[in-house]
Amino acid sequence: MAKSHKPLGTVEQVEAAYYDALSHADIEALMALWAEDDEIVCIHPGAPRLVGHAAIRASWEAIFERGGVHIRPVQLHAAHNLMSAVHNVIEDVGSGPHEGGDMHILATNVYLKTPHGWRLTMHHASIAPGKMPEAQSAAPVLH
Amino acid sequence: MAKSHKPLGTVEQVEAAYYDALSHADIEALMALWAEDDEIVCIHPGAPRLVGHAAIRASWEAIFERGGVHIRPVQLHAAHNLMSAVHNVIEDVGSGPHEGGDMHILATNVYLKTPHGWRLTMHHASIAPGKMPEAQSAAPVLH
Repeated sequence: MAKSHKPLGTVEQVEAAYYDALSHADIEALMALWAEDDEIVCIHPGAPRLVGHAAIRASWEAIFERGGVHIRPVQLHAAHNLMSAVHNVIEDVGSGPHEGGDMHILATNVYLKTPHGWRLTMHHASIAPGKMPEAQSAAPVLH
Repeated sequence: MAKSHKPLGTVEQVEAAYYDALSHADIEALMALWAEDDEIVCIHPGAPRLVGHAAIRASWEAIFERGGVHIRPVQLHAAHNLMSAVHNVIEDVGSGPHEGGDMHILATNVYLKTPHGWRLTMHHASIAPGKMPEAQSAAPVLH
C-alpha cells in the first residue's frame, strides 16, 4: 500500500498507481485516484458501464474478492494538453485467460487536472479480436 | 454536408457534427473534426484499435461504402474542465443489428481544446451485454 502514498505529480504516476492498486487489490488506493465527480465512468471488458463512485467501487470490490488483478499496460498512445491526458493502452494480463489467445484488451484511461492534482475520470476497457499486436515502437530490424 | 460548415464553438456542436457526418457518410466532414495529432485513436466495436488519421480515415471509408451510419447518442455522462471534455454515450443504432437485442454499444468520445477549437482525440466504442438500460433521467413514475 506504500506506493499509493507517494506524491502523484504526473499522469504517469497516477497511471502507475492505478495498475499497482489493482495488483494489490487495494480498494482505498484505487478509489483515491478517481476524480471527485459524480460523472466518472468505468467500463470493464464486456460489461455494462458504471457511473459514479459507489457503483465503480462495488465492482472492484467484487473483482478483488478473487485477489489482485495483474495488468501491465503496454503500447501507450497518449494525447494531452495542459489540463487533460488521454491514454490508450493494451492491457497485458500475462497468464490470465486472455494471454496468447485470440483476443486482447484495449483500455482508454482519461485523466483530468483537478484542484487535487491529476485524477482518473474515465476507464473504458474492451476486448479486441486477435493476439496483441507487435509494438510499433520496437527496435528496428537491422537487416 | 452544410451542417459540417457551421461554426463549432462547443463540444456539443462537435459531437453533433460527428454523428451527423456519420449519417451522411461524409468522410471529409468527419475527419475535419479530429485533432491534428498523430496520437488520435479510434476503436470500432469489437475491432482492434486504429491510431492516426490514415488508419482511421480508411476504416470509415470502408464502412461508408455501405452508406451512412445512423446513430443517436443517448444517456450522456460528461466530465470536463476548461480544456477537455470526456463524453460517454450509449449509441442507439435504431434499426441496426443491435436494436432491441441482447447487446448495446457504449462509446467514449474525448474532446480536447486545440488552437483550432474543440476537436475529437479519441473514439472508443465497445459492445456491452444486455438491452440498453433505461435512462436514469427519465420522468419519475407518478404512482
